Amino acid sequence: MTPYIKERIEAFKKASQNRGRLLIDCPDQPGIVAAVSEFLYKQGANIIESSQYSTNPEGGRFFIRFVFECPNLKEKANEIEAEFQPIAKRFSMDFKFTYVFEVKKMAIFVSKELHCLLELLWEWQSGDLMTDIALVVSNHEDARQIVEPLGIPYYHVPANKDIRAEAEAKQMKLLEEFDIDVIVLARYMQILTPNFVAAHPNRIINIHHSFLPAFVGAKPYERAYDRGVKLIGATSHYVTNDLDEGPIIEQDIERVNHRNDVEDLKKIGRSIERSVLARAVKWHLEDRILVHRNKTIVF
Amino acid sequence: MTPYIKERIEAFKKASQNRGRLLIDCPDQPGIVAAVSEFLYKQGANIIESSQYSTNPEGGRFFIRFVFECPNLKEKANEIEAEFQPIAKRFSMDFKFTYVFEVKKMAIFVSKELHCLLELLWEWQSGDLMTDIALVVSNHEDARQIVEPLGIPYYHVPANKDIRAEAEAKQMKLLEEFDIDVIVLARYMQILTPNFVAAHPNRIINIHHSFLPAFVGAKPYERAYDRGVKLIGATSHYVTNDLDEGPIIEQDIERVNHRNDVEDLKKIGRSIERSVLARAVKWHLEDRILVHRNKTIVF
Amino acid sequence: MTPYIKERIEAFKKASQNRGRLLIDCPDQPGIVAAVSEFLYKQGANIIESSQYSTNPEGGRFFIRFVFECPNLKEKANEIEAEFQPIAKRFSMDFKFTYVFEVKKMAIFVSKELHCLLELLWEWQSGDLMTDIALVVSNHEDARQIVEPLGIPYYHVPANKDIRAEAEAKQMKLLEEFDIDVIVLARYMQILTPNFVAAHPNRIINIHHSFLPAFVGAKPYERAYDRGVKLIGATSHYVTNDLDEGPIIEQDIERVNHRNDVEDLKKIGRSIERSVLARAVKWHLEDRILVHRNKTIVF
Amino acid sequence: MTPYIKERIEAFKKASQNRGRLLIDCPDQPGIVAAVSEFLYKQGANIIESSQYSTNPEGGRFFIRFVFECPNLKEKANEIEAEFQPIAKRFSMDFKFTYVFEVKKMAIFVSKELHCLLELLWEWQSGDLMTDIALVVSNHEDARQIVEPLGIPYYHVPANKDIRAEAEAKQMKLLEEFDIDVIVLARYMQILTPNFVAAHPNRIINIHHSFLPAFVGAKPYERAYDRGVKLIGATSHYVTNDLDEGPIIEQDIERVNHRNDVEDLKKIGRSIERSVLARAVKWHLEDRILVHRNKTIVF
Repeated sequence: MTPYIKERIEAFKKASQNRGRLLIDCPDQPGIVAAVSEFLYKQGANIIESSQYSTNPEGGRFFIRFVFECPNLKEKANEIEAEFQPIAKRFSMDFKFTYVFEVKKMAIFVSKELHCLLELLWEWQSGDLMTDIALVVSNHEDARQIVEPLGIPYYHVPANKDIRAEAEAKQMKLLEEFDIDVIVLARYMQILTPNFVAAHPNRIINIHHSFLPAFVGAKPYERAYDRGVKLIGATSHYVTNDLDEGPIIEQDIERVNHRNDVEDLKKIGRSIERSVLARAVKWHLEDRILVHRNKTIVF
Repeated sequence: MTPYIKERIEAFKKASQNRGRLLIDCPDQPGIVAAVSEFLYKQGANIIESSQYSTNPEGGRFFIRFVFECPNLKEKANEIEAEFQPIAKRFSMDFKFTYVFEVKKMAIFVSKELHCLLELLWEWQSGDLMTDIALVVSNHEDARQIVEPLGIPYYHVPANKDIRAEAEAKQMKLLEEFDIDVIVLARYMQILTPNFVAAHPNRIINIHHSFLPAFVGAKPYERAYDRGVKLIGATSHYVTNDLDEGPIIEQDIERVNHRNDVEDLKKIGRSIERSVLARAVKWHLEDRILVHRNKTIVF
Repeated sequence: MTPYIKERIEAFKKASQNRGRLLIDCPDQPGIVAAVSEFLYKQGANIIESSQYSTNPEGGRFFIRFVFECPNLKEKANEIEAEFQPIAKRFSMDFKFTYVFEVKKMAIFVSKELHCLLELLWEWQSGDLMTDIALVVSNHEDARQIVEPLGIPYYHVPANKDIRAEAEAKQMKLLEEFDIDVIVLARYMQILTPNFVAAHPNRIINIHHSFLPAFVGAKPYERAYDRGVKLIGATSHYVTNDLDEGPIIEQDIERVNHRNDVEDLKKIGRSIERSVLARAVKWHLEDRILVHRNKTIVF
Repeated sequence: MTPYIKERIEAFKKASQNRGRLLIDCPDQPGIVAAVSEFLYKQGANIIESSQYSTNPEGGRFFIRFVFECPNLKEKANEIEAEFQPIAKRFSMDFKFTYVFEVKKMAIFVSKELHCLLELLWEWQSGDLMTDIALVVSNHEDARQIVEPLGIPYYHVPANKDIRAEAEAKQMKLLEEFDIDVIVLARYMQILTPNFVAAHPNRIINIHHSFLPAFVGAKPYERAYDRGVKLIGATSHYVTNDLDEGPIIEQDIERVNHRNDVEDLKKIGRSIERSVLARAVKWHLEDRILVHRNKTIVF
């Protein structure tokens, strides 16, 4: 990381040292908001944002996300989490406290197409993505000259279907070594094994170059061209073991017409992929995404 | 109203007989969410939706909207409102309870361009706008044959700048007689006096045929054509005494190009006006809009 | 047809009595534009619009559409077509002259969902679709009360998979009797037989309620909801014997989110379906669409 | 320029050595297309693309753009232009032949906001903008470290209202020295004098950070925030001596809401500015833009 970015991240950590988030997923029932907001109030926290969603007020599933500001949060975090246990138990909650000052560590995986990587680096440099890009992993050398000048370690890990196990072992070691929180596949063109995926549930974000579920799998622009669609799109999703079937985080499209050949579609598509992936990553970093039954709730 | 629509409104009232909304606008400070959600819980209410916004957590203004389900709400409404007073006082709240089963009474004002009226009637007939369209007022006869077959009273009130006072007196009398909650100017081409406007603060919704603040005033499509813009738009806003300067509720645009003449712009624009006005009206009916310093918060 | 619309169509026929269109599809080669524009010039025609497209200037396929104004076109049409034969032969052209004053006769097929029919009728009444809506055919009675007051004959032809042959025989007879040029399936929920489709190549326009090729077949909104997509769409296409696989004319989408249930998707979708179908029909009526290898070229 | 980009430009020049464009602006009248396409055919040229537009077929102005492929174009260009004179005279044409292999020389002016410059450099590096970026001029040093590694000369020309004449003299000298065809103001925050503007008619492309004509002049995002608009936009236009009043080439918008503060609007806006300017520049480089009465025709 360049000194300039390092400095900015430190400044951000300081500015957000009292800011936390609380995400809850539990059966819907009366009293949840009252209990949690009363709890936060008693901890001295001021609620800055809250969003909630219920699949069905009668017997459904309830989701809520709070952002709060609490003096001395860093010191009190463990205590707060401990004291929250009875409420969590009472309402059978799955919950997660996260701390804005604990900037997430990211690994970016990339192959030969660099536009998504470039967009992420750009937004990161301009301060729009608050994360610590700890390393970039690639099965090619193409991105090295872009990545290293920014002070980010670059690891070339050759990968293909014959050496998958070996490659993933190296990758897993790196992820552990760098204590990675989230993996972004920025047009990484290798398939991951169930083993690798299972180790990072809802923590691997992929960009697929079609508006899923259209054109699952390889060569979506070629197939879009052949089908004569009037829109092309891109989809960012969490990776699961069903190819291109994971929970969709974000999608977008652009218009195309009969004059656009496959190369045009790819060009237009690059621009969609860039912005769709950047939005999905941003929402993940801000803990805005909850996953329920292979779908996302984006608060 | 046709028997079919009357029946649907009655069914809706019944289905929503326990559903209420609470809108709050107050200085930001800790404990608001806790106090209000605790209050609702003690009343036996389940919070179905909530959205909040703060202009600035330190010293700013705080806005929140709750939707809640409460057994026997109809009977308990007065009591709930009375019991809420201490909380309101403690936090210096402006607040408003509304009841989903109290379907809002709407007056639509229209002149000779009927597309916005038609859209509203359409969405109303298909159940997308839950309101009681109590009357249509026009300074022309053009819309009568569309309105009356739906069982809606149609009042032709001639209006122009020479007879403005007289016309508005008639209109005000009708609004009172029908106990109107909201007035929609669906391309009503007469200016309203400060007197009329002051009598209905944030309760008159207009559609202006440009993306404001571009092309304030008359003949926006002609001026858009002359300027050679590549986008045309429409804006729905609450009416204030500054022409086209009221709080903006919703806007949208469509692309145009050099081939489009003024007539094309008007055609394309009609489609934008229809959807923009319909969305704004829908949000108003659902009590989603708060006004703060000539801007809207749309929850 | 009401007297008002009849009158407008007559006025249009008169105003366009000298306006023709020429569509050409041939192997690309030098000299085509020169030969055709020279031909038109010698006939006394002024070219008002022209658009061309080549799949590949070297050895590809060439498409061009001219709109021209020619004095006494009505009287000279046969002669012009005859004189064009040598050029057509020289360049191995498939070509078609059409005449703007020959307003196309349309049949609309509809089932129980009426929003697409309503949109077409609306645009037709407001003069945006220049066509003679000669009849509406439905397997239900629901639309009768909307259609007949406009002076359009309404035919209830019961249809289901058991009586398909019989139903289509009746429909074919009606289409012949009314001398129909184009059939619009405005949410007509019956499958057509290969026989019926083959009789109307590139003359049956359907609206499918998904962004094809996603969600081919039944219940696309339910499946979109289950998949958790962030966009829903609609597609208008020419009908072929491969279900939902015909040449795509137009598509569009709207954003949705986790709060939208299946009913919401249907509501939002109705609005997309309306505008997508209306645009596709308009382009067909204006002879803007050429079909090449199951794809459309829309000039 | 880096060797890699230089090589690509050379390859492009070679591949397009027979490709030309012809732009015409003349009074509408019969026979233009026939005469010009006949002329091109006789020169041995194959028409690859053509687009035309008439303000009014009767007595209006006619515009047409041809792209053609002609063997030995480089050698024959002068001869072709000379032989075209009689046709130009006959139809009172303003016309311009341009040659695709004559890659346009561009100067980019920038101040402290670098996102538009970065986008142009990016698209240029990835081959989407075919131009020779001959130099970057700035009144600040900020962009130097981005520009120079790409082998593009960087000139720091201090500028403010007190030294405008002196600054522009230096700039003009640079433009002449580098034989510049087009100047892109990529968020260059100095006003140009009438003298400078007059020297480059329809050859200076600016990006303004609002959807003009809304928010002409300074601080558009601040004013958009104050007005509470629900859309923000950007506009690319040719520079004239009326501030932000030149012919609009391209515009686009994004949705915003009450949660977005001025900083958010600027972030969102940067993304719109980038893509709007890049499209406008691309169209200019491809000679797609004709200017007529302060409006653009974009073919």
